[in-house]
Amino acid sequence: MKHLFFLLTLSIINYQFSVAQNAFKVIPLGVKGGLDESNLSAYLVAPAESDNYICLDAGTIRTGIEKAKSNKLFKTTSENFLKNNLKAYLISHAHLDHVSGLVLNSVDDTVKNIYALPFTIDYLQKHYFNWKSWPNLGSDGDSPALNKYRYKFLVPAAEAQIENTALSVKPFLLSHSNHYQSTAFLLRNNDNYMLYFGDTGADEVEKSDKMEQVWKTIAPLVKEKKLKAIFLEVSFPDETADEKLYGHLNPKWFYKEMETLAKLAGKDALKELNVIITHMKPTGNNEEMIKKQVSEQNKYRLNLIFAEQGVLYNF
Amino acid sequence: MKHLFFLLTLSIINYQFSVAQNAFKVIPLGVKGGLDESNLSAYLVAPAESDNYICLDAGTIRTGIEKAKSNKLFKTTSENFLKNNLKAYLISHAHLDHVSGLVLNSVDDTVKNIYALPFTIDYLQKHYFNWKSWPNLGSDGDSPALNKYRYKFLVPAAEAQIENTALSVKPFLLSHSNHYQSTAFLLRNNDNYMLYFGDTGADEVEKSDKMEQVWKTIAPLVKEKKLKAIFLEVSFPDETADEKLYGHLNPKWFYKEMETLAKLAGKDALKELNVIITHMKPTGNNEEMIKKQVSEQNKYRLNLIFAEQGVLYNF
Repeated sequence: MKHLFFLLTLSIINYQFSVAQNAFKVIPLGVKGGLDESNLSAYLVAPAESDNYICLDAGTIRTGIEKAKSNKLFKTTSENFLKNNLKAYLISHAHLDHVSGLVLNSVDDTVKNIYALPFTIDYLQKHYFNWKSWPNLGSDGDSPALNKYRYKFLVPAAEAQIENTALSVKPFLLSHSNHYQSTAFLLRNNDNYMLYFGDTGADEVEKSDKMEQVWKTIAPLVKEKKLKAIFLEVSFPDETADEKLYGHLNPKWFYKEMETLAKLAGKDALKELNVIITHMKPTGNNEEMIKKQVSEQNKYRLNLIFAEQGVLYNF
Repeated sequence: MKHLFFLLTLSIINYQFSVAQNAFKVIPLGVKGGLDESNLSAYLVAPAESDNYICLDAGTIRTGIEKAKSNKLFKTTSENFLKNNLKAYLISHAHLDHVSGLVLNSVDDTVKNIYALPFTIDYLQKHYFNWKSWPNLGSDGDSPALNKYRYKFLVPAAEAQIENTALSVKPFLLSHSNHYQSTAFLLRNNDNYMLYFGDTGADEVEKSDKMEQVWKTIAPLVKEKKLKAIFLEVSFPDETADEKLYGHLNPKWFYKEMETLAKLAGKDALKELNVIITHMKPTGNNEEMIKKQVSEQNKYRLNLIFAEQGVLYNF
């Protein structure tokens, strides 16, 4: 009896602990939507209990790691952190502001996997790791393929385990203007989830249902509080006309998409949901305007986060 | 008689002034040989009397302009400086660490020319401005070509005027390992010259005579003190074996090339010659080692300069 009571207590403690516990560590290596070479989209993510990170997109790597180092987030050198703690890249699409840091740091990197949908791997092979833009450090493509980075072809809506980490990923196709595709990554650590969107336009503007498909998949996770954070782009302020969005969101369309999610998950489910605003393009005072506009229109009471380079976030 | 004397005095003053006068202003926007996305090869050059700059290579643009701005080198905004004061790009080769900043900043830039040898323009078209890595802002290539950047095909050893500036350029082919080509640019402002090398290996290692051809051309200018500065790369320290140089120089080979120049121009002609060491790869403590080794072996008493990002140099 005493033994049973002990087990019961333990399981209650465990349950409470798992509810309160953070599931993911995130360190942005770059947060801006273009122009500033020192701070372009790249987000390190590890399970809360681990230092084995994946990197979601890879616009800026080295400058971001140096910033994290100066913020005392790790003890080893920046070079060792890149080599040993960054276990894999997940790339949403091959626009330069999402892959430049990966390519530039590849020669000094260690063997690792690049996970992406086939169209992204195709462009990485043909236009970056091709001996013309850069030596071919990939596992395929223009000969000789030096086979440091191993291309891992993801399949839309099929979960894949990310080697050397405790994370899994399920990718979704996105529309990024004019027949260009991008990717959303749903990450899983046990029964906890995080959703990262690469560049994307709103369904209504893109004449697509790609965002809605993602919302339908993750709505139950939002309801059950298993989705710990959403990373979604807001590249331009509301002053930018729809025909000048070029496959990106502004605050108005951001909230139009949130409305779709609210309808599927229930409005109250969005309250306090962590939403990291990514990819604000730093032209003029765009960033300030976007922050103001996104904050003012926050009728769902999302926990909006304007993440900074080299800072640790726990979700 | 008094009038003649005045004219004579004036012409002597003018002559002395022109001897002492600087011919070029240089602002490095980035100086490192890879890895650090915030500080990659890019050098602004203008005639001493002008604020109309060209940019030699374009690894990092925005972060470098911001740095120059914070050093109070100009009064306008960084965005206006890019748009209005940077008049043309000259690209030595299409490796990503020499073009990333150009591509990333192109959407917010104004109409301007890109001068390069045909192999570089071919790669820019096919692998960067191709609607896959980036929208096609070039004047040719994958349709639609948005025609913001006009490709200007240079011809080896033929001088071309750089539009919207008082500068002319004569390009030379270089060997950058394994059948890859690069370019040296000889800039002219009236009767003053400056020589910029893109990435290059030493002739002996590359089994080439490309460097020697450049030295033969510019030796008379060195003798006559018309060559105001040479920008030459030293990517690795002497500990790097020849077969690991991959088309780059270390201090030993740098001085082997200087020896060729000394033989052609006379050893004394090299004394006090401004030589800017470019493209040191910032792996480990490479940069310190390269500086030490280049300084220690300086038997020609070159005026060695380890240029910094965002600082003004007058030559």
